Amino acid sequence: MAIQTPDLSCVSLSGGFWDHWIETLRTVTLPSQYRHLQDTGRIAALDPDHAPGDATAHHKFWDSDIGKWMEAAACSLATHPDPVLEGQLESLIAQFGRLQCKDGYLNSWFTKVYPDRRWTNLRDDHELYCAGHLMEAAIAHQRATGRTDFVRIMTAYADLIAKTFGTADDQRRGYPGHEEIELALIKLFELTGEEKYWNLAAYFIDERGSQPHYFETEANERGDAHTVRWGGHEYFQAHVPVRKQNIATGHAVRAMYLYSGMTDIGSHKGDRELAQAIEALRDNVCNKQMYITGSVGAAGHGERFTFDYDLPEETSYCETCAAIGLVFWNHRLLKACGEGRFADVMERALYNGVLSGISLTGDRYFYVNPLASIGNHHRQDWFGCACCPPNMARLLASLGQYVYSEGEDAWVHLFVNSTAQLKVGGVEMTLNQETNYPWEGAVRIGVSPHAPLKCGINVRLPGWCDSVGISINGEALDVTTIARKGYAHIDRTWRAGDIIDIDIPMPVERIYTNTQVRMANGKVALQRGPIVYCLEEVDIGVRPLNRISLSMDAPLTARFQNDTLGGVTVVSGECIVQADGREALYGPERPETTTIPFKAIPYYAWDNREAGHMQVWLRESDR
Amino acid sequence: MAIQTPDLSCVSLSGGFWDHWIETLRTVTLPSQYRHLQDTGRIAALDPDHAPGDATAHHKFWDSDIGKWMEAAACSLATHPDPVLEGQLESLIAQFGRLQCKDGYLNSWFTKVYPDRRWTNLRDDHELYCAGHLMEAAIAHQRATGRTDFVRIMTAYADLIAKTFGTADDQRRGYPGHEEIELALIKLFELTGEEKYWNLAAYFIDERGSQPHYFETEANERGDAHTVRWGGHEYFQAHVPVRKQNIATGHAVRAMYLYSGMTDIGSHKGDRELAQAIEALRDNVCNKQMYITGSVGAAGHGERFTFDYDLPEETSYCETCAAIGLVFWNHRLLKACGEGRFADVMERALYNGVLSGISLTGDRYFYVNPLASIGNHHRQDWFGCACCPPNMARLLASLGQYVYSEGEDAWVHLFVNSTAQLKVGGVEMTLNQETNYPWEGAVRIGVSPHAPLKCGINVRLPGWCDSVGISINGEALDVTTIARKGYAHIDRTWRAGDIIDIDIPMPVERIYTNTQVRMANGKVALQRGPIVYCLEEVDIGVRPLNRISLSMDAPLTARFQNDTLGGVTVVSGECIVQADGREALYGPERPETTTIPFKAIPYYAWDNREAGHMQVWLRESDR
Repeated sequence: MAIQTPDLSCVSLSGGFWDHWIETLRTVTLPSQYRHLQDTGRIAALDPDHAPGDATAHHKFWDSDIGKWMEAAACSLATHPDPVLEGQLESLIAQFGRLQCKDGYLNSWFTKVYPDRRWTNLRDDHELYCAGHLMEAAIAHQRATGRTDFVRIMTAYADLIAKTFGTADDQRRGYPGHEEIELALIKLFELTGEEKYWNLAAYFIDERGSQPHYFETEANERGDAHTVRWGGHEYFQAHVPVRKQNIATGHAVRAMYLYSGMTDIGSHKGDRELAQAIEALRDNVCNKQMYITGSVGAAGHGERFTFDYDLPEETSYCETCAAIGLVFWNHRLLKACGEGRFADVMERALYNGVLSGISLTGDRYFYVNPLASIGNHHRQDWFGCACCPPNMARLLASLGQYVYSEGEDAWVHLFVNSTAQLKVGGVEMTLNQETNYPWEGAVRIGVSPHAPLKCGINVRLPGWCDSVGISINGEALDVTTIARKGYAHIDRTWRAGDIIDIDIPMPVERIYTNTQVRMANGKVALQRGPIVYCLEEVDIGVRPLNRISLSMDAPLTARFQNDTLGGVTVVSGECIVQADGREALYGPERPETTTIPFKAIPYYAWDNREAGHMQVWLRESDR
Repeated sequence: MAIQTPDLSCVSLSGGFWDHWIETLRTVTLPSQYRHLQDTGRIAALDPDHAPGDATAHHKFWDSDIGKWMEAAACSLATHPDPVLEGQLESLIAQFGRLQCKDGYLNSWFTKVYPDRRWTNLRDDHELYCAGHLMEAAIAHQRATGRTDFVRIMTAYADLIAKTFGTADDQRRGYPGHEEIELALIKLFELTGEEKYWNLAAYFIDERGSQPHYFETEANERGDAHTVRWGGHEYFQAHVPVRKQNIATGHAVRAMYLYSGMTDIGSHKGDRELAQAIEALRDNVCNKQMYITGSVGAAGHGERFTFDYDLPEETSYCETCAAIGLVFWNHRLLKACGEGRFADVMERALYNGVLSGISLTGDRYFYVNPLASIGNHHRQDWFGCACCPPNMARLLASLGQYVYSEGEDAWVHLFVNSTAQLKVGGVEMTLNQETNYPWEGAVRIGVSPHAPLKCGINVRLPGWCDSVGISINGEALDVTTIARKGYAHIDRTWRAGDIIDIDIPMPVERIYTNTQVRMANGKVALQRGPIVYCLEEVDIGVRPLNRISLSMDAPLTARFQNDTLGGVTVVSGECIVQADGREALYGPERPETTTIPFKAIPYYAWDNREAGHMQVWLRESDR
């Protein structure tokens, strides 16, 4: 394959924007999440000798919560040895080993609470979803530590699943109600080379939505009158076979995981029909149903996609996991096609709708990431349904994998202070990236091939910038002539000590939506580089914030403020504010206005100070 | 009492705006609703010999649906004899007579479906609510026909209720979960002079919200773990005693009926404490929680009030019954205080949020009256929970009662083509009102006292107009010197043939909200006279409608169009429209704009043509 992802251990992040997050992950996020796993009984629930387990609906997700934390811990160990963390991980692996049934089956809820319900409700019970997350954890564990004990446990389970599900007469024609295991099986194939895992993933994807409908069949077998849930199989992306799908539907996290799996499967063997469905879905998501923050899933009821251009602000749901899923999907698209538009979406989500999911302190989380708030939405330290916190942890812990690709060429997708050991054209090459991105657009990449090497280095040209400057060893390139699908393709013989300087202008941009977005007509959002900005009441003292509007031609300035929110670039200027205070609810008097200074902060950093109103989209005045 | 409501039979409406509605009520609305009552089994359910009845939750409301229809039919008979209608009404009365238990109890659901549950769940089961509606029907029946058979049935039931509930040791200290019976009992007192009915209404009102909490007590008695429903007793306006309430809470229809009952009770004996609570609630509703259409109850979940200045547009609930309830309440306030601000609210609701509840054809209804729509909201011919259609029918059938008051003075509250026989200062006086209101502001009132009569005629000065002109027999009055709390108090010796000419200028007004309404900042609504306007997609061909904005100084013209929507005054002008068609969801290009003509129609008349987007609040451009 042309574009490959380097091993996590080959990319080291240090300094710069992400340093805070990675450091906090290790010192705060992972330890505090482990405590939550303990305190809420999730870890105790693995103990076969421990009492009956918990019949609550949430317990059915618990294995996945632990699995995601284990994956995060393993990824962290890949670059940062930590004996305490390793001990916790090994202990959990041992517990899963003890919990595992003789036939390989492994699920704490079913084994301990409902042993007779195994494989009876794939639609609702997250059985294969939990399996998938544990497999991903095991794979990360082996890649990080070289140890194979966890993978052995999980391949035994995967083998049972492969035996259980499929098209043969003695198999069930089921597939997961919540997609996820597809991604795990593809990774397991990549780790082990065993085709059967790839085939099982492909089966799960292609069986989905076929007739007779498995979810109805199994509901009938259970005697469950609700053969259809959540208003239709669309909720599960199972209304028609996936190759016939072209509009993103249903539960957003499920959709993101499915489309990720489809992309893996579709690209592996050049499946043109699948590729077309994926492109249609991508177009629908990114051009019709995605928030400016890279969040998806507008509706709280069903945590789901609604319809084209329906992007409410205050009531937007935007689950953190869905934005993370959008990163997963676009990273896979990027790997499949090497086009900058995928990196653009990945970056948009990362710096905005994903990162908003965690507090600056690293121990509080948004499940829901609205685009506006009236002061009643705050991060929490944990959730009954706790999918988001450990998902955030595993994404942050594996961030290095999203920065570069290797293969015939080297690729720089994200501008992150880091050093990478890549294999390019079979030769070792070190890339050393220094930048104060996203606050500044200057990036310097030191290139050190093991030996002089003729190859391409593809440097991303962010879609939000049309004037990236690049020079090699001080000599400017004509970027337009080497631009290729969102990357500057710099093909030359690289020698140790070569320097690529990239200059990405970052003016404050006013962003407008397609006018089909009825909520945003007449409004503007502020963006600088990849960072989407918002207004927070604490900075302005105006409530409701929608009393504020921005003049069409108000000058906007950006300034890095070391003492604000751990150090962020703040956008400031003057805005128009409507007077407050009249008693009558309605009247013919147009509200008077004055002009006051305002300060906008990065969206991801909101709700880290005083509670108050927040708004991304601002009314724009024609004055 | 100073201000009294004339008998319905004394006011005859003919010609003008309301003629269509009253005529349609008789020819279409009442007959088609009767068919629905039949077709849905509601009438059959009254038959004691008919099989067991319907255990569905909706059946518990059925008696009230029939009761409201009967009240409407009786009111219609008061001015328009109709043997078919009278036959249907008499037949229903006979059926209720047969259904009635020996002890007076009368409820089809409890008697036939759950005979052992009588008085076990006042909170949820609408038992007293149904009783109230049947009482109101019986009272209307006696007032219209002079027959007493229905009232005898209902006083027997009222007597049982009076015996059952109260503060004595052998009584239950209950009160209704859905207020309504209070209004019926007060009317029953007015009809019969029996103080016990007034006392029972007063008891129900003052017992509400006291401790120990009756809803919890009865839930415990039932063994119902849900001692609190809908998140708190606020839903039922029973969180604290009503005298301590000052913010409108909970289910909006319930609230309107309670506040109406409080107003009746409070004004009857000059209860100052109750009057203060009522004024606080009124201020909260009308200055903080009321839509420009006179609709109330912003949230669909719980059909309820939310919080101050929370007036979403597309998701606004605005149940038709709640706007009708606002009319009831303000009519009672008007009767208590004779202030124009109450008539203003009554009129606002009538011409907008109430009237939108019924189609121009008179046989389709909105339950929900949103302020904006994306084309997916339409009137229906009936509902499972069918409270709104017959409520609309009884309001329209009794409209004459809202136009005038009598007593020491005569009062003209609404400008409606009509003739009224009033008793003023003990003397018969005929007022004959001719007007093309609300399309034109010229009103002529012919005054004919039986004999020359010195008294005041109070002519309303609408709050939305500050330059009403009035002349008597062609001679202009100085309105400012005789203006008194929203009425021109014209005190003179009236003689037969006197003519009052009223001139109410009706420019198209731009209306703005208090800037605390975050949804409406930067927006404008159009109003002319009492009519609130909206844009409908069918007139403009722009989707979404929010692509449109209105220039601050765009000229607006009003023209009556005979061929539009049965004849309405249309507001037209030019608006700015943002271009459509760009593919990208987000980008730095400000959408281009053009100018196109637009036409606005009365809000009440929307959704009577093609399905499409609708919007009341329009973005206003500073250009």
